[in-house]
Amino acid sequence: METTKITNFDLYDIVLNGDQEEINALDTLELEGWVKTNRDNGSIGFVDFTDGTYFKSVQLVYTLESKNYNVLSALKTGAAIKILGKLVLTPENKQPFEIHVLDCTLEGDVEDDYPLQKKRHSFEFLRDIAHIRPRTNTFQAVYRVRSVLSFAVHDFFQNNGFIYVHTPLITTNDGEGAGNVFDVVTHDTKDPNSFYGRKVNLTVTGQLHVEPFALAFRNVYTFGPAFRAEHSNTVRHASEFWMIEPEMAFADLNDNMQVIEDCVKFCINYILAACPEEMKFFNTMIDNTLIERLEHVANSEFKKISYTEGIEILQEAVKNGVKFDNPKIDWGMDLQSEHERYLTEQVVKGPLFLTNYPKEIKAFYMRENEDGKTVAACDLLVPAVGELVGGSQREERYDVLLKKMQKIGNDKELDWYLDTRRYGGCKHAGFGIGFDRLLMYVTGMQNIRDVQPYPRTSGNIKY
Amino acid sequence: METTKITNFDLYDIVLNGDQEEINALDTLELEGWVKTNRDNGSIGFVDFTDGTYFKSVQLVYTLESKNYNVLSALKTGAAIKILGKLVLTPENKQPFEIHVLDCTLEGDVEDDYPLQKKRHSFEFLRDIAHIRPRTNTFQAVYRVRSVLSFAVHDFFQNNGFIYVHTPLITTNDGEGAGNVFDVVTHDTKDPNSFYGRKVNLTVTGQLHVEPFALAFRNVYTFGPAFRAEHSNTVRHASEFWMIEPEMAFADLNDNMQVIEDCVKFCINYILAACPEEMKFFNTMIDNTLIERLEHVANSEFKKISYTEGIEILQEAVKNGVKFDNPKIDWGMDLQSEHERYLTEQVVKGPLFLTNYPKEIKAFYMRENEDGKTVAACDLLVPAVGELVGGSQREERYDVLLKKMQKIGNDKELDWYLDTRRYGGCKHAGFGIGFDRLLMYVTGMQNIRDVQPYPRTSGNIKY
Repeated sequence: METTKITNFDLYDIVLNGDQEEINALDTLELEGWVKTNRDNGSIGFVDFTDGTYFKSVQLVYTLESKNYNVLSALKTGAAIKILGKLVLTPENKQPFEIHVLDCTLEGDVEDDYPLQKKRHSFEFLRDIAHIRPRTNTFQAVYRVRSVLSFAVHDFFQNNGFIYVHTPLITTNDGEGAGNVFDVVTHDTKDPNSFYGRKVNLTVTGQLHVEPFALAFRNVYTFGPAFRAEHSNTVRHASEFWMIEPEMAFADLNDNMQVIEDCVKFCINYILAACPEEMKFFNTMIDNTLIERLEHVANSEFKKISYTEGIEILQEAVKNGVKFDNPKIDWGMDLQSEHERYLTEQVVKGPLFLTNYPKEIKAFYMRENEDGKTVAACDLLVPAVGELVGGSQREERYDVLLKKMQKIGNDKELDWYLDTRRYGGCKHAGFGIGFDRLLMYVTGMQNIRDVQPYPRTSGNIKY
Repeated sequence: METTKITNFDLYDIVLNGDQEEINALDTLELEGWVKTNRDNGSIGFVDFTDGTYFKSVQLVYTLESKNYNVLSALKTGAAIKILGKLVLTPENKQPFEIHVLDCTLEGDVEDDYPLQKKRHSFEFLRDIAHIRPRTNTFQAVYRVRSVLSFAVHDFFQNNGFIYVHTPLITTNDGEGAGNVFDVVTHDTKDPNSFYGRKVNLTVTGQLHVEPFALAFRNVYTFGPAFRAEHSNTVRHASEFWMIEPEMAFADLNDNMQVIEDCVKFCINYILAACPEEMKFFNTMIDNTLIERLEHVANSEFKKISYTEGIEILQEAVKNGVKFDNPKIDWGMDLQSEHERYLTEQVVKGPLFLTNYPKEIKAFYMRENEDGKTVAACDLLVPAVGELVGGSQREERYDVLLKKMQKIGNDKELDWYLDTRRYGGCKHAGFGIGFDRLLMYVTGMQNIRDVQPYPRTSGNIKY
């Protein structure tokens, strides 16, 4: 009989969904992967085995009759092995099958200082071994969901007719003008002008570069890295992160909010369907309200209230004895996370768009409303997190935009951006989702350092 | 009757594939988009109209009976408009339908210095208006294929069980040690150590960072930006570009070549099926051998010959009178594009893997073969282009790798990379595809500046 090379993923799939013929073909099978634990009871031993293709591991059973028993018996946590085995169904057990080992080859041994031993490790400890932590259960789940969520994002936009645009990372402008940029210089001269002949920095947003594409393709999106040289040492800030920035021509603020709602719901439903084992794990180990919370959002109508109404509700709440760390609620203030969470968690008890913010606290490109005081912005607030998405209708009126840009002094450097308002401009809108924060939201993970493969934060770069 | 808001894409889809009920619903329809050309013959006028959702434009027909005839008559190339119209099928004409305009609103006018007028513009000219060129036929085709090809790449890897990893852009190492890196400094101090406490640069490859993930998930890939501060002013070099870098545990050079072949074929077939109008355009306007060439590759068995055989063939060719700019063919040399193209175009007349290169001309991480002289590398060469993909089996033997890294002096800085060979390492392999070059290959476009949204090349950065 021939040997079938197989992965854990396909093994589970065939045992749970395959027909008899497929199962019979696994009478002699070959697996390659790593030892999670090994326990030899003298005459019978058990290896908890993974090959990284599926969240669930496979139990290998070996006995004195297995070839290379001495190799099997000595296997250490982390070792790479090749196994020749036989599938044995165990429908009466918790695990639906096990593999009886016929032979074993040690592909790669493990030195004794291997940092992952059979005990629970803190996230802090694991952050220091970012190259090893993908082997742990938590990070197997985090990074698989990260991968699937990335694909869900592309799937949503591509199947809704959006064109993916790779906006540049090295740029001459600093987007919203916040100033926290990294400069890019050549290694030899350190002269910021030397390579391109102009001072350049890493992008903080792809929006300005993608807007011209919306005015050519109607619906477009970016999905790529962005950078902020902020020394914010919080659980939600990283200096390098991935952003999703859709932009739609002939769309207003309401169209924008509809796409945001559809996108968030699509991503949640996609992950729940595609990563059931991982999501069960997060719900058990990280946050036992996670799945309920996500399902609630996926099935909720997203409410809308204006910033001005929001302020009134918060002022009323303070009057009624609600305690905030920042209890001074005035129209024109930037809301803190505690205020946003009060509105979404206590007031509407579900996802909430806050709209039409004071123009002074929002970016220059947002469209000024008729009241002369607010702009057509929308932030999506969700329970347990606060702000998840920020968007706006863009200022399409050339004269209005020019005046605002002259005031902050970026009209000359962004003359090409202004062009889009002179050459067949039209109403348009877009939004930004911090991908890492979206991933934190759908996994329940609490620190951005624990959802990025190699997190980059202030003072911290080992890899 | 209600007005149906519709896009060009859906309009073509319904006319070509819809049923009578769907077609009837378009008796009154609304379109939003831009004027490509406008020709008023006095009593009847024609607008060539696009909204960016489909490669083909739509013909709008207006008469004196159309509301706002004066607006219609005065429409300039590039203007943004909203149209109320009626679908009229024209099965006897080249275009299967036209839209009879009932009413028109000018959404955004065009100033007289609009750079795209009704004539052909050179690619050189268009490069200077990267924010406007997405509106031209060529760049509508290029950027749509770019988007679809990106999705094809994700589709291929995700559906083959690969985990997508966002490797970092800011890093402390320079990958293969070629030295052409951009340094990253904070804007205020310009001190390269100030933000992270260490000197950092922009990544040249994600491979070193993704290998540890292959040793946890088996099959993984990156797809993101990489940077080279090379002053090469060629049609194939950009300082910022997107790379695809898959990595597979328990895979050798042959497994690697199989995945490369499958991936390239999948991408070609995907684009031909998903972008037929764009591909027809490229075949007509850019390179009339394109589709034939791509179909040939998609249907070919990829041949394999060793570097050593390749050298012998080239030496024989020189003897037989074949002229090369570099006619001195010696074992150990780095092949030039002319040599690669001779092998793929003249010798095997199809896609070709060249394997087992001299170790001196390849990177430190490639696995040394038993001969002690070559490494298990493979470059995929294709007609009309030359090298399209480069890959290798990785050196998994700790001692061998350590010695090589000590020699070039990166063993200390990459101690974490060496760890992967001490902790359950195993044979593994991977490859890299320059995404922009793959896009050039499938579109026939000849200059990397014409496939990137905002190309970054030496001395050149406007946006």
